[in-house]
Amino acid sequence: MAHIQLPIAEELGREFPGILGPMTFRPETAAPLNELVNILLRGESTLSRGEREMIATHVSWRNDCFFCQTIHGAVAAAQLGHDEALVHKVMTDFAEAEISPRLKALLNIAGKVQLGGKHVTAEDIAAARDLGATDIEIHDTVLIAAVFCMCNRYVDGLGTWAPLDPAIYRQRAAQIVEHGYTGVTEVAMATMQH
Amino acid sequence: MAHIQLPIAEELGREFPGILGPMTFRPETAAPLNELVNILLRGESTLSRGEREMIATHVSWRNDCFFCQTIHGAVAAAQLGHDEALVHKVMTDFAEAEISPRLKALLNIAGKVQLGGKHVTAEDIAAARDLGATDIEIHDTVLIAAVFCMCNRYVDGLGTWAPLDPAIYRQRAAQIVEHGYTGVTEVAMATMQH
Repeated sequence: MAHIQLPIAEELGREFPGILGPMTFRPETAAPLNELVNILLRGESTLSRGEREMIATHVSWRNDCFFCQTIHGAVAAAQLGHDEALVHKVMTDFAEAEISPRLKALLNIAGKVQLGGKHVTAEDIAAARDLGATDIEIHDTVLIAAVFCMCNRYVDGLGTWAPLDPAIYRQRAAQIVEHGYTGVTEVAMATMQH
Repeated sequence: MAHIQLPIAEELGREFPGILGPMTFRPETAAPLNELVNILLRGESTLSRGEREMIATHVSWRNDCFFCQTIHGAVAAAQLGHDEALVHKVMTDFAEAEISPRLKALLNIAGKVQLGGKHVTAEDIAAARDLGATDIEIHDTVLIAAVFCMCNRYVDGLGTWAPLDPAIYRQRAAQIVEHGYTGVTEVAMATMQH
């Protein structure tokens, strides 16, 4: 059980998994949070949706947040031709993954942000820029990493539960790919036990 | 100079300080971020605005973010009869500060969240609950702490600058107390150099 009493999902007979638990508990704060994530991971960008989801996944893995790394890993894979092996490699060992050097430089920055903002050095930024990263890509990488340092703490700080079956995450990921993040709390709340 | 090229404030001849730098650079993400902070720190709550600002200040101090700890410390003091000594004590050594045992228990949870969500234990939660903390107060404490782990990383991960003069923070704090956080980006952008 979570640290606080969260709403019960009718179909599960228990709390909604992961971040949906606190989001259904407090929809007022969930709304701007989902909007922020939706802009960063799905809004207009020269980084693909798959690339941005991989940054979120890597940071969540660094923070050891099972729910976030698994759902965003599933969304990343769904955006990348269902290449789950690639996503797993990027999550755990991006330096050796088959991705662009520019994305590796951005993942390096994201990893530094996870440790703390001051860990990002001028050299980290210069390396990304030399590989073609723009200011807005660097900005969004830093903010995505920071946002997931928030989400990971929100999910684990309240002691939420997470399903273990990968099929559940694949199914949810397909819904996110189709509908985005903005309405996830409302969709969950429609199936809340009263 | 910051790690990326940020807008220039006309009156300063340089970037806007702290989080206003990246917020004026990317107002699309600033809007939900400010809305989230506004609900958490100023929305309806059984925690006073001063108490919530002290949680934000303590977490920002733990993350060694000078801009955030100084501006939210100034807002906290402005909400607490300008008692800057109390805010400084809570920020750096809350266990010995003259605040309620309930707020101490919530600050303990916030500090655990800063380390990482999994550091929060059932005992930390039980201690807060025994002192009268409600589920929504515990939820909001965890989310405030998580949000500032994001903001601190956003501010320092992009290498923003921060003024040193406390008078500047006192003046900005007075504006925040009066107008809140929702419109801060727009107000700054009106004074941007073109």
